[in-house]
Amino acid sequence: MKKDVALVHACRLINHGPTVLVGSAHAGRRNVMAAAWLMPVEFVPPRVAVVVDKSTYTRELLMASGGFTISVPCRAVLDMTYTVGSSSGRDLAQAGGPDKFERYGIESFDSPLLGLPFVEGCIAWLECKLINEPHSEEAYDTCFGEVVSAQADSRVFDGGHWSFRADNAELHTLHHLGGGHFAWPGQSVQATLLPTR
Amino acid sequence: MKKDVALVHACRLINHGPTVLVGSAHAGRRNVMAAAWLMPVEFVPPRVAVVVDKSTYTRELLMASGGFTISVPCRAVLDMTYTVGSSSGRDLAQAGGPDKFERYGIESFDSPLLGLPFVEGCIAWLECKLINEPHSEEAYDTCFGEVVSAQADSRVFDGGHWSFRADNAELHTLHHLGGGHFAWPGQSVQATLLPTR
Repeated sequence: MKKDVALVHACRLINHGPTVLVGSAHAGRRNVMAAAWLMPVEFVPPRVAVVVDKSTYTRELLMASGGFTISVPCRAVLDMTYTVGSSSGRDLAQAGGPDKFERYGIESFDSPLLGLPFVEGCIAWLECKLINEPHSEEAYDTCFGEVVSAQADSRVFDGGHWSFRADNAELHTLHHLGGGHFAWPGQSVQATLLPTR
Repeated sequence: MKKDVALVHACRLINHGPTVLVGSAHAGRRNVMAAAWLMPVEFVPPRVAVVVDKSTYTRELLMASGGFTISVPCRAVLDMTYTVGSSSGRDLAQAGGPDKFERYGIESFDSPLLGLPFVEGCIAWLECKLINEPHSEEAYDTCFGEVVSAQADSRVFDGGHWSFRADNAELHTLHHLGGGHFAWPGQSVQATLLPTR
């Protein structure tokens, strides 16, 4: 089901505004958080911007390692997505107990180039090298990254295109409306150019 | 139907990743373009980041005026959204003919504080003062703005919350999958926190 996505199509994976999971790891510690505030900023090379608050454990780890992963969750992992967005990896680390992956039974696998955690059960995966932008990081918690590899579940994204259908409803992306309320793309349509007046 | 939205809730209008229309005007010229690359970066004060390519007419106008508007389109204006994202305001201006609003019969109204064009037929409207960030603008075409007023159509956003239902389907937001193919939130659900293992 996992299939490599050409880098030229990587931004399509997040073009429609899904909530994502940001994975990070450094020196034997790892974390995953939910993030709705993410966008592409460039098609080629594929680059993204993501807001990661400076108080978060994810921010600490991604600054230390110089990279992060983006896993795109789907309806099948709705509650997991909400859960990792509602608990603090730092609190867990400080308590000395299991991290979020262990605590909530979340399976992960290593991203191919950077060896950072991707989340199983998602439908698309991008790994990113952090681009050093101290001012944006400090002023807006906005971290820029360059996508160095991309994969997707070919049941819902193939040939550079999403295909959200009734027969793959559990694989549809999640879009956070606030407070743990999520929408997903039920249908899609091809728009038509208007005639001029 | 248009109702003021508290600034503390302004980011909810775009939290789920809709494609938007960016309005701009300066010295008697105006333009509107579609943008899928937009995200909140701060709840309070509400701030956003939007990618506006440096080659665009919109970029020229928003840099000159120091502000821009965001109108959130819906299914009822699907083709208009695609159309303003597929034509160049500069080409029209250089040809000396009508602008996109006139050419495609798009009704507009002035944003309350900055007097910049909002698009009628949309379901939410945010006006933004540009925050001067020359490096991000140059390196990533990423423009930061502070939201100074927000409104929404109370049939689909009220009390700080979106409500996408079968009876307001024409008012659902658009999410660009690429190439003029758009999805919309057909359904939504409240997530539940997972128990720990």
